Order: sequence, then C-alpha cells, then structure tokens
Amino acid sequence: MSKVVRVHQHGGPEVLRIEDLEVGEPGPGEVRIAVEAIGLNRAEAAFRSGMYLQKPTLPTLIGYEGVGVIEAIGPDVQGFKAGDRVCVVPSFRQGEYGLYAEKAIVPARSLLPPPPGLTPVQAASIWMQYFTALAIIEVGHATVGDHVVIRAASSSVGLAAIQLANWAGAVSIACTRRSDKAAALKAHGAQHVIATEETDLVAEVMRITGGKGARLVFDPVGGPEVDKLAQAMAEEGILFIYGSLSGQPTVFPHWPAALKGLSLRGWVASQIWGKPERYARAHKLILQGLAEGHLQPVIAKTFPLAQIVEAHRYLESNQQIGKIVVTVN
Amino acid sequence: MSKVVRVHQHGGPEVLRIEDLEVGEPGPGEVRIAVEAIGLNRAEAAFRSGMYLQKPTLPTLIGYEGVGVIEAIGPDVQGFKAGDRVCVVPSFRQGEYGLYAEKAIVPARSLLPPPPGLTPVQAASIWMQYFTALAIIEVGHATVGDHVVIRAASSSVGLAAIQLANWAGAVSIACTRRSDKAAALKAHGAQHVIATEETDLVAEVMRITGGKGARLVFDPVGGPEVDKLAQAMAEEGILFIYGSLSGQPTVFPHWPAALKGLSLRGWVASQIWGKPERYARAHKLILQGLAEGHLQPVIAKTFPLAQIVEAHRYLESNQQIGKIVVTVN
Repeated sequence: MSKVVRVHQHGGPEVLRIEDLEVGEPGPGEVRIAVEAIGLNRAEAAFRSGMYLQKPTLPTLIGYEGVGVIEAIGPDVQGFKAGDRVCVVPSFRQGEYGLYAEKAIVPARSLLPPPPGLTPVQAASIWMQYFTALAIIEVGHATVGDHVVIRAASSSVGLAAIQLANWAGAVSIACTRRSDKAAALKAHGAQHVIATEETDLVAEVMRITGGKGARLVFDPVGGPEVDKLAQAMAEEGILFIYGSLSGQPTVFPHWPAALKGLSLRGWVASQIWGKPERYARAHKLILQGLAEGHLQPVIAKTFPLAQIVEAHRYLESNQQIGKIVVTVN
Repeated sequence: MSKVVRVHQHGGPEVLRIEDLEVGEPGPGEVRIAVEAIGLNRAEAAFRSGMYLQKPTLPTLIGYEGVGVIEAIGPDVQGFKAGDRVCVVPSFRQGEYGLYAEKAIVPARSLLPPPPGLTPVQAASIWMQYFTALAIIEVGHATVGDHVVIRAASSSVGLAAIQLANWAGAVSIACTRRSDKAAALKAHGAQHVIATEETDLVAEVMRITGGKGARLVFDPVGGPEVDKLAQAMAEEGILFIYGSLSGQPTVFPHWPAALKGLSLRGWVASQIWGKPERYARAHKLILQGLAEGHLQPVIAKTFPLAQIVEAHRYLESNQQIGKIVVTVN
C-alpha cells in the first residue's frame, strides 16, 4: 500500500484526498516508480476543478510531471532498468496516470533521463515549462532584434520564456499585474517589466520597442487584454495563446490583426512532444541550455506530499515566482 | 463639371448621391482620369454605412478601384502620360479619392497598366480580388496536397481564392450558405462545394480530406462559425480572417487551436501593396496567372453609374457570383 492522491469530486484544493492504495504492477510499455518530486502545473488545478478539456471518470488519479526511481519494469520496455532515476514528462492525458503519490505507474514513452547536475526537485520542474515556452523558438523563431512580451511572467512557463528569449538574443518584456514582483522578475532575467494594472501596456511596449511593437507575445491568460496586446505588436507578429486563465473568451482583435497581419496561434506543449522529430530537437536544446546556464529552473516553494492541498492553494494564489514542487519522502 | 458620387450621411445604398462637381486639377503625385469602369468592393458598403475602420468627414468621396484614361498629370509623376489607360489599385484610404465618378483624381502610386487582353470592365475587377486572395500563396504557401476551405466563395475574392488554390495544385473547397450556387461554383472551378446551412461542415471537410482537415481556411465572415472551421482544420493550419461580415465577434477557438497549433491570421490586401517587394512579386504572379488562364475574372453584373444605388443594393444582396462593375459613359 502507498499514499496516492485522488479526486473523488471536482472542486477546490480540498478535494485532493490522500488515500492508501495498492498501485500494482506495470503493464506493457509501463514502469512503476518510487516518486521523489512532483512538479505542479496550472492544468492540474483546472483538471481538479473540472474545468479541463478532458473530464475524467471519478475518482481519478492526478499529477503528470515528476521525478522518481524505477522499481519495476513492465513488458516491452526498452532502455530503462530498475534503479534508474527518471523524469516523467507530462506527455500523457491527465488522469490516465497519477504522479501525486509515493509510487506511480507511468508510461515508458514519457520518461527522460534527468539532466546532469540537477536535484530531483529541479529535475521535476523543467519539462513542462521549457517545452511549452519553446514555442517562441520553434514556431516564433525569436532572435536578435525581436521583442518578446511574456504575460503571467512569474509563472514557471513565463520565467522559462524569459530565459529562452534572452538566450535567443531577443529582448524579454515581462508582464505582471502589479509592480511588487518587478524586482524579482528583473533578478530572474526580465529585461523590462510592465505592471499591467499600473501602466499603459501599449504605450510602454511602444516606448521600449521604439514604436515598432513586439514581434512575439506569449500569453496563457487570453480574454479582453488580448486586444491591447495586439495593439502593442509589430507587423506580422505572432501572439501565442497557451491557456485561458482569464476564464473569458478571447475575441480576435480584428483591426490590429488585419492591418499588421498578426497571427493568434494556439499552443500546448504537446505540439512538441507529439512530433518525434521536434521532440528530439527540443529535448537537445533544453539539455544544452541547462548545461550552458542559459536555462535555470526557478523553484518558488516546495511542499511535502502530506500538504498537497496547501500546495494547490499556493498554486492558485498567484504569489509564486517559479515552479511549485511537491516532495515525497 | 462632371458626375461625382458623394455620401453626405451614413446609411443604406440610397445615401449615394450623384452630384455635378468640378473635379479640378491633379496635385503633386496625382493624375486625373476619365473613369471607364469601377469595381465594387464590400469595404465600400461598410464605408458608406459608417461601419468601416476609418470614419470620413462628410460629405465624402467613395470608390477606390477602377479603370480609366489619363487626362491630366500632376507635378512629380513619372511613367504615365495623358491618353494612357490605367488601372487604379485600391491602395489608398477610402474617401481620400473617389472613383465613383465620371472623372477622378487618383494617386499615381496606385496605378498599374491594365493587363493585356482584358476589357476595361474586367480590368476594373482584378486587383482587390487577386491581391487579397494571394494570402493563401504569399503567407499560406498553398501547394499540392493542401486543402483550402474558402468561405463566401461566390464573392469576387472567394472566386479568386478558388482559382489561386487550383493553380497551386491544392484542393479548393468552396463554402456557400445554400446549395443554389453549388453548380455555378463548380463551373467556376471549385473542386468541392459545401452548403453550410444544409450540411455538417466539419464532417464534410473531414470526409473530403480523408480525416486530415484543411490546412488553409480563407474567411471574410468571422463570428461563431469560426469554431467549426477550426474543428475542420489540419495540424498547424492557418485560418485567414480578412473581414467581419458576420457582424459578430470572432472568439478564438481555444481548444482546436491549442491541440492542433492553429493560427488565426488577420489579413487585408494592404499587407501586400504596403510592402514594395511583395507587391512587385504579387503583381507579376497575377499577370502570369491571367496570361496563362489560371486566373479569369468573373463579372457578376454591370450597372451604369446612374444606377449606383441599385449596384450597392445588389452588392449587399448576396445574389452575385463574382464582381460587380459599374460602367461610366
């Protein structure tokens, strides 16, 4: 028996229930790991509360990013053995497997070796954030001379985007709601910070870019502010929408988009790991970035598994700068 | 004195008033033409009714595409002389000049020689439609193996998009509201026709594309149907929005866009003629397409200038297949 978190009904953080369950043996293509650290993602809060695209059958397992040590190998698994420490990349459907646990069965196709030099907590934090933020490189081709506006910049993906934009020689412009996080964002590499509730976003981006506008915008929020973001963009810019945290519809910004030839581009990290060639290239880039110090995981706070409810509360509090990681044992 | 149409107040077609006015002499960079034929565009109906981006000072001139013969040349105009027949490309702000007239002053930078072999009526119909529809080539890179869904396919731009998609070896899928135009659309080159009020759009596109979806969509309507169009699209597809004829907001189709990495791309023809290199390339392509027969202007109906009100009524009736042209003298 081991501690496993399940959701029996959708709701707030308190619906995360720690139970003693028999995890069982891995099936074909699967392994069982002793979990060491779990990276939390906003998508898990949406899944927990019933707001995610895929509605699970309840009760459901939860959690899909983490690090652990392989205990048992199922049939048809190549390249891994018991005792290996592995990262679990969140490249399966939420609820299909569950990392919020002491032990978890996971698909071998979602495993990667932990990058050298990272602690398990750090290694549990990297894949979702860097694969997601790689949109600005893989699709946006961020480069020298570009300005990249990063909304919700304090999130783990936001910080990853700042690091990637800087690495590519572009100018990172971090957006955060209030200026209380500005100093921390600058310390984490943001070249400019705009406190959107205190400043005129369009005027400030135009000032920073010398009137040209930002060629790339990276936004997990959507909603009515997208029109302002579009007004702050350069000709033929790309505005990535990789979430809908505003909870409001995102109306296509007709005139700025038409006159400047802007694209609104939908994005999720599966756009990388669903494509083997792109996945291999992106994986290599992330390893290089970590090895050379361009990419540095930022851990906002850790919680023990027993405090999974508090960890989700913190996840939804918007206080954090970086990734929240839950440790096991 | 010559007949000139002006709008004194925004409203329906009846606000188009034919007056006797002195057109005057061309200024620097301008020429005066004796108008022969005027191509009508939907944007002019929006401008007339006060729904266009730029609100003019009233009374205003109207009309920006046509053919005429140069009568007088202003200072600083190179490459044209009195007696030349010229096309006026609608590459200036509506109301800045006005083609709905017997005589009109127009900017020399908006002139092109009429392509060989076209009547004045045909030559008045080509530039807006082909420069606009070239989005699918210039930006969408339509090619062999692609499926291109063309909404409002009976419009002049819609037919131009069908011709361009076919020329590029792609499969053209014309969308029209009811099946009464299906035969005509097929006769004009549509490889498939979907009557959107009579058929399940998504199922039909998936049937035609063998489950893959359309890589390109070309849409002047926007509004709630965009979500269905997104569902009918292929991975990494581009949905061009070049108008908002629905009058309703276009909500970003979050999940299909995210899961398939779709782009919604704003578009107007000025994205071509505002960029000299692209304008030159596109102009050459259009001439080649006309010369080789890939592009064939389709004239829905002609009206004399005296019936400009009736011409606008017809423009807004959605009965036409192709371009409406107004003839002068």
